[in-house]
Amino acid sequence: MNKQIVLKKRPIGVPTVSNFEVIEISAPTIREGELLLKPKVVSVDPYMRGRMSDAKSYVAPFEIGKPIAGGVVAEVVESKHPDFKAGDNVIGSFPWQEVFTAKGSEASKVDGSIAPLSYYLGILGMPGLTAYFGLLDIGKPQKGETVVVSGAAGAVGIVVGQIARIHGCRVVGIAGEQSKVDYLMNDLGFDAAINYKTESNIAGALATVCPDGVDVYFDNVGGEISDAVISQINKGARIIICGQISLYNATSQPVGPRIQPTILKKSALMQGFIVSNYASRFPEGFKALAEWVGSGQLKYTNTTYHGFEKLPEAFIALFEGKNLGKLIVEVK
Amino acid sequence: MNKQIVLKKRPIGVPTVSNFEVIEISAPTIREGELLLKPKVVSVDPYMRGRMSDAKSYVAPFEIGKPIAGGVVAEVVESKHPDFKAGDNVIGSFPWQEVFTAKGSEASKVDGSIAPLSYYLGILGMPGLTAYFGLLDIGKPQKGETVVVSGAAGAVGIVVGQIARIHGCRVVGIAGEQSKVDYLMNDLGFDAAINYKTESNIAGALATVCPDGVDVYFDNVGGEISDAVISQINKGARIIICGQISLYNATSQPVGPRIQPTILKKSALMQGFIVSNYASRFPEGFKALAEWVGSGQLKYTNTTYHGFEKLPEAFIALFEGKNLGKLIVEVK
Repeated sequence: MNKQIVLKKRPIGVPTVSNFEVIEISAPTIREGELLLKPKVVSVDPYMRGRMSDAKSYVAPFEIGKPIAGGVVAEVVESKHPDFKAGDNVIGSFPWQEVFTAKGSEASKVDGSIAPLSYYLGILGMPGLTAYFGLLDIGKPQKGETVVVSGAAGAVGIVVGQIARIHGCRVVGIAGEQSKVDYLMNDLGFDAAINYKTESNIAGALATVCPDGVDVYFDNVGGEISDAVISQINKGARIIICGQISLYNATSQPVGPRIQPTILKKSALMQGFIVSNYASRFPEGFKALAEWVGSGQLKYTNTTYHGFEKLPEAFIALFEGKNLGKLIVEVK
Repeated sequence: MNKQIVLKKRPIGVPTVSNFEVIEISAPTIREGELLLKPKVVSVDPYMRGRMSDAKSYVAPFEIGKPIAGGVVAEVVESKHPDFKAGDNVIGSFPWQEVFTAKGSEASKVDGSIAPLSYYLGILGMPGLTAYFGLLDIGKPQKGETVVVSGAAGAVGIVVGQIARIHGCRVVGIAGEQSKVDYLMNDLGFDAAINYKTESNIAGALATVCPDGVDVYFDNVGGEISDAVISQINKGARIIICGQISLYNATSQPVGPRIQPTILKKSALMQGFIVSNYASRFPEGFKALAEWVGSGQLKYTNTTYHGFEKLPEAFIALFEGKNLGKLIVEVK
């Protein structure tokens, strides 16, 4: 017996569990050059919402009736590939399936003795590399500058803020729960944090905690929070467009204040990116992140769901802002 | 007798002649180190609209009752500065005044034998340098790429398009008169041009004339024209925010489709700038522009008003899109 979670129908607006279906399929047969794999830790990420829609984006859409796929750390149950043996842990872009096969070339070994396996889906994986390259390559934060990050308590945001601190910046986070604000300030050393759900005037609150204006804005959320931050930018500011989670479930064209006049007046730069643009430099990013994790300069945390069938629920929780740090699902 | 044109009251919305006043003042007295100057060619530029408002921008506001000031080529009537003599032509940021004095340090000599004096306010001056640095430094156009420029028949736009052609790009202009469209295609060699006033579906028209999408967008106008262009950008596109003339007279916050999701999906870059950011590289830009003008690779044209008191009318004409090329006022 084997289970798979497929896209049942495309969501309109916020995804619900009814967009997914758990189906029973037969056990896979392993062929030469392949691995038989069981997931241990499965990642749910905001970008996957884009793949649930039919619209053209930077990753191809999921197909109806076919499994959802994403970042997975899996254990090798059986190997017919010379580079792997049973018991190895590997990472790759794999289907949401209890047992599955993959080519050896699609899997990369990960070492659970260096860091928890979940870290390879977080700070030492896609979210960590996203924070590293977006902040440093586009944002170019300079010592003494003010860096604001939205979605600050999420998988990417907590890394952005800590790397900015390491670079000597004043760091302000925007998040949606008092517990997140407390975590950013007390556990991660952010200079200030704003709860956008209880703060009625985000621009005013930012002006108070960013008395010298905003030099770098790392944007994970978009929408009105970004309007407020952009109203506070300095001349020469850099705005990194990493995510727009507040708009991913929009059912009509989102509208807001035009930002080009501000971009012009401030000689500001805005740059969108996807982490795979930096694929050739992943070893550099991984090395830096691993060193900071090893030295204790970079802290990380997960919000963990348990059980394969919780995957849809965990994914939906992303859009409810329920996660502190990386949202993962541990599979028995 | 001497005349000066002052800001009478700040415009709300589109400026009118009632925002200006011609007043009589006494003749100036020249002191040691100064020049006595008479304007020959006076520049009117869209950025001056920003200075008529009280709002903070990249240049300080004009003061009520004080003269408007901007780019002027003037003749030295009398010199008490060792570097200048009567009959020299100089350029500087000078008041709208029939006779005025300036320090020698505020004036730079220009050579009417190299190019018409008006060119120092256009292709060899601020608009030309704006086109040069914005397109090449931010846009980085590559051979074979498609470059779209809005305000294409204006002082900056006609230079942008021709430099892009020199760099081997496909060039598409957007302008607001059939005569401008004809000029861009027949006289300047643009590959295509769109009349946004008669074209009901600008995005569709762009898709037709940019079959490979848009790699570089040099934006002088903003608003709905920019929405249409941004809908057609390619992965890795560069958007240069040089001007937003369609929004300068707005009396409330301009609103439009949010662009960040497109910037994200396309890993696009958007950068605002003002030409003075490149002041240290002006000699490089001037040299390149002068060579292209000399070799005939860069053509230029003016729309000329005649007479000192026509200055307000000429300035207002900018916002009516009446000018082909640089709008200047020749003063007897």
